[in-house]
Amino acid sequence: MKIGKATQPHTAICTSNADTIVVRGADLCRDLIGHLSFTEYFHFLLTGRRASPAAVAVLDATLVAIAEHGLVPSVQASRMTLAASPEVLQGAVAAGILGCGSVILGASENAGQLFHQVQARAAGQDLDAAAAAVLGEYVAAGRAIPGYGHPQHKARDPRVARLFEVAAEQGIDLRYVRIAEALERAIAPALGKDLRLNVSAAIPAVLLGIGFPLQALKGVPILARTAGLIAHLSEELQSSIGFALSYQASRSVRYDGELPEGFEPAPGH
Amino acid sequence: MKIGKATQPHTAICTSNADTIVVRGADLCRDLIGHLSFTEYFHFLLTGRRASPAAVAVLDATLVAIAEHGLVPSVQASRMTLAASPEVLQGAVAAGILGCGSVILGASENAGQLFHQVQARAAGQDLDAAAAAVLGEYVAAGRAIPGYGHPQHKARDPRVARLFEVAAEQGIDLRYVRIAEALERAIAPALGKDLRLNVSAAIPAVLLGIGFPLQALKGVPILARTAGLIAHLSEELQSSIGFALSYQASRSVRYDGELPEGFEPAPGH
Amino acid sequence: MKIGKATQPHTAICTSNADTIVVRGADLCRDLIGHLSFTEYFHFLLTGRRASPAAVAVLDATLVAIAEHGLVPSVQASRMTLAASPEVLQGAVAAGILGCGSVILGASENAGQLFHQVQARAAGQDLDAAAAAVLGEYVAAGRAIPGYGHPQHKARDPRVARLFEVAAEQGIDLRYVRIAEALERAIAPALGKDLRLNVSAAIPAVLLGIGFPLQALKGVPILARTAGLIAHLSEELQSSIGFALSYQASRSVRYDGELPEGFEPAPGH
Amino acid sequence: MKIGKATQPHTAICTSNADTIVVRGADLCRDLIGHLSFTEYFHFLLTGRRASPAAVAVLDATLVAIAEHGLVPSVQASRMTLAASPEVLQGAVAAGILGCGSVILGASENAGQLFHQVQARAAGQDLDAAAAAVLGEYVAAGRAIPGYGHPQHKARDPRVARLFEVAAEQGIDLRYVRIAEALERAIAPALGKDLRLNVSAAIPAVLLGIGFPLQALKGVPILARTAGLIAHLSEELQSSIGFALSYQASRSVRYDGELPEGFEPAPGH
Repeated sequence: MKIGKATQPHTAICTSNADTIVVRGADLCRDLIGHLSFTEYFHFLLTGRRASPAAVAVLDATLVAIAEHGLVPSVQASRMTLAASPEVLQGAVAAGILGCGSVILGASENAGQLFHQVQARAAGQDLDAAAAAVLGEYVAAGRAIPGYGHPQHKARDPRVARLFEVAAEQGIDLRYVRIAEALERAIAPALGKDLRLNVSAAIPAVLLGIGFPLQALKGVPILARTAGLIAHLSEELQSSIGFALSYQASRSVRYDGELPEGFEPAPGH
Repeated sequence: MKIGKATQPHTAICTSNADTIVVRGADLCRDLIGHLSFTEYFHFLLTGRRASPAAVAVLDATLVAIAEHGLVPSVQASRMTLAASPEVLQGAVAAGILGCGSVILGASENAGQLFHQVQARAAGQDLDAAAAAVLGEYVAAGRAIPGYGHPQHKARDPRVARLFEVAAEQGIDLRYVRIAEALERAIAPALGKDLRLNVSAAIPAVLLGIGFPLQALKGVPILARTAGLIAHLSEELQSSIGFALSYQASRSVRYDGELPEGFEPAPGH
Repeated sequence: MKIGKATQPHTAICTSNADTIVVRGADLCRDLIGHLSFTEYFHFLLTGRRASPAAVAVLDATLVAIAEHGLVPSVQASRMTLAASPEVLQGAVAAGILGCGSVILGASENAGQLFHQVQARAAGQDLDAAAAAVLGEYVAAGRAIPGYGHPQHKARDPRVARLFEVAAEQGIDLRYVRIAEALERAIAPALGKDLRLNVSAAIPAVLLGIGFPLQALKGVPILARTAGLIAHLSEELQSSIGFALSYQASRSVRYDGELPEGFEPAPGH
Repeated sequence: MKIGKATQPHTAICTSNADTIVVRGADLCRDLIGHLSFTEYFHFLLTGRRASPAAVAVLDATLVAIAEHGLVPSVQASRMTLAASPEVLQGAVAAGILGCGSVILGASENAGQLFHQVQARAAGQDLDAAAAAVLGEYVAAGRAIPGYGHPQHKARDPRVARLFEVAAEQGIDLRYVRIAEALERAIAPALGKDLRLNVSAAIPAVLLGIGFPLQALKGVPILARTAGLIAHLSEELQSSIGFALSYQASRSVRYDGELPEGFEPAPGH
């Protein structure tokens, strides 16, 4: 096989020699360490562009909003994994991140794509009409509406208003916030139930307003949750509850399969 | 089984009701989103304490220092995983994080434990003597010295001086920086080779000086690398090199096992 | 929240008391250990039914066929992960399994779904017409045809003929083998290129013939590859090549981003 | 850098050309598919040697013994992960495998190392004395005794007797079974509590008797559990309990951190 276009790997992120590490064209030690916050660096690493102070404030707000929400399933999975393997922090973090799927934290990216469709459809015209039209297509295709509805925060996820407030304070482009709200208004008529915006829709609504790349949106909840997981795993190392969580869950389990003759269930089952 | 102390799970990180999410005693929406940077929030999530501006600057510097160093093995593994499963960003991030092991990024935590031992041994006395004594025990036990030596940066990893500079500028406690340097001086006499401080030792040297918890040190490279991985995976989605990397590596592989009679190796192998 | 239908977990796979472990209604120690092969047990665990000898032979053949194909990307990712974290075998296995995605080993399940569609369309009538019709829909929708074409085995993946031979010898239902071959004949006219059956299509073609559940098809390559990964990781522990693979791949990488003034690339880059 | 011994990757497991896949010197399609069971193939892949029928029977027995034990923590973690990301089977399997750590399934390998030490100490002499001596060293060093004691099966894990029975029936070398039992007798005097053999010790006790490689012991529970995980994940896809498990566990959680003034806990917490 020849080495051609397809088989020569290339990257524009980082290179180095014995003395210098170059990231996105900058000298890591001279230009970046001690000059950029981690959030600014994340934006720079990802896009190659320095973020404005307003963009950094909004990106920080989304990372803070989504990093932690208690003992959600992925955190439980992560703590159970550390309890079984306490010397392998990276394994427990990985198990927790694997729970950032389409149903839970992955909705950010899908909501971002939904907003993009409404934006394309509106083409500068009426957002409500465009929102209703795109929503109608989702309903017709039997697709779930990503980023609306929350099992606990029925009225409205409190993080939504706060993220929109930060976005307004920072003076960023609020186009996608308006699209998100237009969709929220269109949902009750279209679906017959009043699903309100949750944090997974608020995140792309504000991040698309700072020009954050659509295909990297899922990275925001993943990075944020990594911070939350590390806090939980640090607590787990000091006071382990991973097996207690599993024990409590298993107490409620009903076995509904077959049994051999004479088998007596364990007490409490 | 009764529910007792051991089996009732408890946590001090987060709780919530329908309107309010509480993190470490603060109201997430009112007190934290829009007020704390992601780095400040990471510190607060982990420790329950607000970090001083100097501590935040140092923590930011370590996260920026370790987030990215090009197509290292864990990044290659992550990009190969995304190439095989492009719709599963969380799986590729998890694969990359699993490479934060004892040999690569895990050295931060082990170096931190080494510094703690020297600190305990010195007890306010001579650091060089304490460093030599602890080092002697490592050598006698055949243990590797975590955080010293680098395959590419032989002279000294350039991130070390920069991190120490930031620590000095911020006026934090430099005790562990001095311990790290005392160990560096003690290594050549003890080991017969001149291994210099690398970034994995510089990180705990400055973070222990801001009171960062020892058992969470490994979380710093893991969180930082997650940002680097997301940047690489975003590039991978736009221009995939995962299979090209694998192809290039496999071209160099020599098969040294048995062969059935008449087998002709593929051209180029 | 009330505990209702939706919130009480239940399972039909396994229960136990202090003396007896029950799996799918059988006593594990009395009825299964020493009586069933691992492959028979896998089938029983998954379906609750004992497999016929012919079904076991076919399932064994598929597991043997797909377990190993050298230093493919997921094996490289797994060996790099173990090199970085040699004490964490489970982490390296997990990293390797994460590479069983849609592009690589996940094609088995997608091919199985394609065959089911052809079977439903044919409804006892002409398979070639049904295959051409379903294929036409895939082409119209711009969907890839899962399980056809192989980068190395252009003529035809040699595992295909062997799996079909085993299926015929064992006298199982060959309906889905015929569907797979009807699709193979239909591809050249429909796509204008002659993509031949690969192992990822041959596996569902024979497994659907033993009544293996469609939604568990992806489990077959995952289980099989776990065996291959363990063999590679055992070799890696004795003679590590994880970093050498990464080094060889990185030698070929071209950096095409910006550079700071005066930066001299490392020799060989 | 020159390509030398250290940097040229090599493997003795598999190579291929366009027509033939070679595994451990055999032609995969001609010699292995349809001729070896998956268990025989796993042994061959790992060691390069064909296993005797007795060795296969014992290896099958261990894989069947350890594959499944209900909704243990790693299975719960895996099902929660699939519930969050139902289209990513490989991610949920990976999360489950990450729970095969030192505390849970990793004990097999550690028990095997313990048996090796007793075997070396005995050197053909009295096993009870050697067992007591090695055990004394573990106790003196504060090390846990891997493979003894079980939270549910207090009397003795029922899988132990069955595995030893299969080993005796198959006529394999029972040396390590005797070592495991000598340790069991020595534990009550040494530790003051009567910890009985569990399945994680029985597995190496019989596998070392068939010459199974010590450094690959951990692969046996990992491979076996992958089969159990696939069965659970197939059930999860048909009837999801992942979130119900998490909900049940979280009902029992007590928040013991600080609260902002006026915060009212959610009902039931």
